Amino acid sequence: MNKHRIILASKSPRRQYLLKELGLDFEIRTKDTDESFPPGLVAEGIPLYLSRKKALAFKNELTPGELLIAADTVVWINNQVLNKPVDHADAVRMLKMLSGNMHQVFTGVCLSSTEKTVSFFAETKVYFKPLTDQEIDHYIHHSKPFDKAGSYGAQDWIGLVGVKRIEGTYFNVMGLPMFELYQELQKF
Amino acid sequence: MNKHRIILASKSPRRQYLLKELGLDFEIRTKDTDESFPPGLVAEGIPLYLSRKKALAFKNELTPGELLIAADTVVWINNQVLNKPVDHADAVRMLKMLSGNMHQVFTGVCLSSTEKTVSFFAETKVYFKPLTDQEIDHYIHHSKPFDKAGSYGAQDWIGLVGVKRIEGTYFNVMGLPMFELYQELQKF
Repeated sequence: MNKHRIILASKSPRRQYLLKELGLDFEIRTKDTDESFPPGLVAEGIPLYLSRKKALAFKNELTPGELLIAADTVVWINNQVLNKPVDHADAVRMLKMLSGNMHQVFTGVCLSSTEKTVSFFAETKVYFKPLTDQEIDHYIHHSKPFDKAGSYGAQDWIGLVGVKRIEGTYFNVMGLPMFELYQELQKF
Repeated sequence: MNKHRIILASKSPRRQYLLKELGLDFEIRTKDTDESFPPGLVAEGIPLYLSRKKALAFKNELTPGELLIAADTVVWINNQVLNKPVDHADAVRMLKMLSGNMHQVFTGVCLSSTEKTVSFFAETKVYFKPLTDQEIDHYIHHSKPFDKAGSYGAQDWIGLVGVKRIEGTYFNVMGLPMFELYQELQKF
């Protein structure tokens, strides 16, 4: 499907799992990147910017024939972005914002080689039922969602019992838009 | 969350996995049931009928305090139901019907105890991109989807690369509508 040697620039076990399911051989290379972004960016503009920033960090290390995949996922609600929670109270605050509301999940992906760079994104709308305080506490206590944008994983307990509807793809919410990625890898 | 001793009447490893993720203890009891249904039934009427039929097969064996969960999932397209494929050619035929089209996935669930019986269902719309003959053959050859209604699993390779959008919940497409099940178990 793609003749490049593929490199996934992500520590996320969910992204690693999904790329494996695609049936591709790949290598994992990661770097800590500063996740700040210019204040004017909104919605998909943020993960598009951050995934490109993650990719650029590897710019001088790629060799011909390598294709690097970098991605960033954000939760967007009420015109603001929810990052990874800093502590339990922050996770409670985020889940209370999501409770009973629709939010958008945007993943930006940047594919790069020594020859070119391609960016794309996917959007999924996620509708949470009203969550009780007990459900929020139970979830944070058991699943410790501190590595997850917006404080939840769609594949976790809270995703099973709390998400009443999505519009878009599920894998985008998990962190990697497989449908779009597959198309872009074929074209790259 | 529910004081009953829960019994799952399903051989599906996906349903067993999902119920485990809900954090409930449960036992598995299965029976082979004739999956025929009256010709007048359409859409959600079919899995509602079949899940009730599966539950009724256990009627005389339930003891007080037990709660049995039976479910049936169908793929509905062009006013017809797609069952499990009988062979490779049948799977090709079904995937060609789904290719480039929207279909509906309905799961009917029947909860029963010695005291009462409750039925409900969930619907998810699934949109496939146009699939190539190579993609269809590759998938059937590698994943052998002969135990799956409509010849595909949403969690399989073909679901990752072929599904461009869903409307509803992902877990319903996997075979058990967790959002609705959680609510109904709380009320039962």
